[in-house]
Amino acid sequence: VRSAATSVDDLATRVLAGHLPSVARMISLAERGIDGAAEQVAHLYRAGGRARVVGVTGVPGAGKSTLVSVLAAAFRERGKTVGIVAIDPTSPISGGSILGDRVRMGRLAEDPGVFIRSMATRGALGGLSRAAGDAVTTLDAAGIDVVVIETVGVGQDEVEVAAACHTAVVVCSPGFGDGVQMLKAGLLEIADIFCVNKEDLPGAGAVVRDLKQMLRLGHTEAGAWRIPVLTTVATEDQGTAALADAVERHQEWLQISGELAIRERMLAASRIKNLALRLTLEEIEDPSGAEAFAQIVEEVRARRLDPLTAARRLMSNQHVGEGT
Amino acid sequence: VRSAATSVDDLATRVLAGHLPSVARMISLAERGIDGAAEQVAHLYRAGGRARVVGVTGVPGAGKSTLVSVLAAAFRERGKTVGIVAIDPTSPISGGSILGDRVRMGRLAEDPGVFIRSMATRGALGGLSRAAGDAVTTLDAAGIDVVVIETVGVGQDEVEVAAACHTAVVVCSPGFGDGVQMLKAGLLEIADIFCVNKEDLPGAGAVVRDLKQMLRLGHTEAGAWRIPVLTTVATEDQGTAALADAVERHQEWLQISGELAIRERMLAASRIKNLALRLTLEEIEDPSGAEAFAQIVEEVRARRLDPLTAARRLMSNQHVGEGT
Repeated sequence: VRSAATSVDDLATRVLAGHLPSVARMISLAERGIDGAAEQVAHLYRAGGRARVVGVTGVPGAGKSTLVSVLAAAFRERGKTVGIVAIDPTSPISGGSILGDRVRMGRLAEDPGVFIRSMATRGALGGLSRAAGDAVTTLDAAGIDVVVIETVGVGQDEVEVAAACHTAVVVCSPGFGDGVQMLKAGLLEIADIFCVNKEDLPGAGAVVRDLKQMLRLGHTEAGAWRIPVLTTVATEDQGTAALADAVERHQEWLQISGELAIRERMLAASRIKNLALRLTLEEIEDPSGAEAFAQIVEEVRARRLDPLTAARRLMSNQHVGEGT
Repeated sequence: VRSAATSVDDLATRVLAGHLPSVARMISLAERGIDGAAEQVAHLYRAGGRARVVGVTGVPGAGKSTLVSVLAAAFRERGKTVGIVAIDPTSPISGGSILGDRVRMGRLAEDPGVFIRSMATRGALGGLSRAAGDAVTTLDAAGIDVVVIETVGVGQDEVEVAAACHTAVVVCSPGFGDGVQMLKAGLLEIADIFCVNKEDLPGAGAVVRDLKQMLRLGHTEAGAWRIPVLTTVATEDQGTAALADAVERHQEWLQISGELAIRERMLAASRIKNLALRLTLEEIEDPSGAEAFAQIVEEVRARRLDPLTAARRLMSNQHVGEGT
């Protein structure tokens, strides 16, 4: 009988060898917070840095899932391996959505050069960003060329995930609510590329016009990236090659402009903060401190103590090992 | 010229006296993380504990906003003062939404017994829960009887906010996506009361049936709360009194069953965790450590260091004050 730690070690070795079933297993272990998994993801992180991360986000109903599958196929045609991390706030972990993905992705699901992973958003505070970060790190270490993160950009967490990428594609479509209006909450600011999907529907032209109008209002310095507004009909695979081209052009621009290092510093900072938050929660939830925590909670419930002082006490206890 | 700290002190005193403009100002200061505001909210926390918190959440388009305004009016008719904290993930801080609220709330907006506050979800990780918690604490300290938190239950953060209340009302409606299906992500589990709004639309009966079917599948022990499925037409003020009755019945049950203390312990634990996360982020983002943080970020970007080790170093540095 091997210990859990040993088998996680073996797993990391297989991930580095590009073994995709081990990638799936490593992501699951990290997601569930299994002992030793975080250390192994840390180890994998140091071995990575080659993958390019593309975020695809937008309002619900814009057709992001279909768009992601045709975009992945376009990258495959260019000889790249692709990982898809689909984050769906409405899907339970075990439910119809993973099967749905398989059906939706069609031939992609049978392509050994494509890895598809669905995640529900049922983790703890900020758990989504951490789980997505671990998945990216693992896919990167396994030698995947392009990782596409698909999120519904509705909550702050989703916006943060979409921002944690090299290239952010923001998708909208006509005929669903007020289109561009729905994009207000931070999505506009993170877009490197706009994609108006369902171009064949009435109102698509108006959405394109609104976006271009808005972009004209922004300042564009010489040498800055000019955010393109593309149109697609994902269900017909229309406009997909142009979208893949735009993603590649953006990544060339990142390299040439020096923006790549700036963006990768942002990604690193965001990973560090997420992990610091995870460590904080783990310490608070550590079983060895459960009794002390329950006592402090009771004090706060009874309003003899306020939550801020309680949080300070917990944190100073854990780190300094002094009483209060 | 008074110092910022002094004026925040004065503000807390005015909040305790029930002065609503000061409530608004205190919530804003806490939301923006102004020096001294967190301490004052902590002070207000110890003075509170009387308000009952009702969460209203559900899928987008279910008519929650209208439902909240008629529910608030129903509580007003019962002689209670009401605070409404509306969290809208698509609204920018300064935008149409606050004006929209004023219009939407109609006569409520002119009632001095009603306090309405909109919040966008553009904060940091878990920022939504913290800001909403501070708003509840402030309204409670000001003597408001019922605080209604309105959220769109799409992200994990929204689900957590909805769970941080005494009574959770989960709203759905026919004709928007697949109704009950949309509710999967954690919303079903937190419901104390289901409300099918837009009862006048085709398909409402099926949604009610689905919910009742699902509830029958759950176990109900003797003395447990039996989750009711109510129907409303919020735009016509239909079913509102029955909904307010159900909320009051639930709160009586909390008291009688002893569940109130259990739930308030959960609320206290959630507040403490949120604040511990805020303290962690504040320490990482403290300007005095900016240079050290930038160095560590650069190490991580260059893959000489992994994010987990970096996070551990930052946290041990901050608390113990030792180098690594």
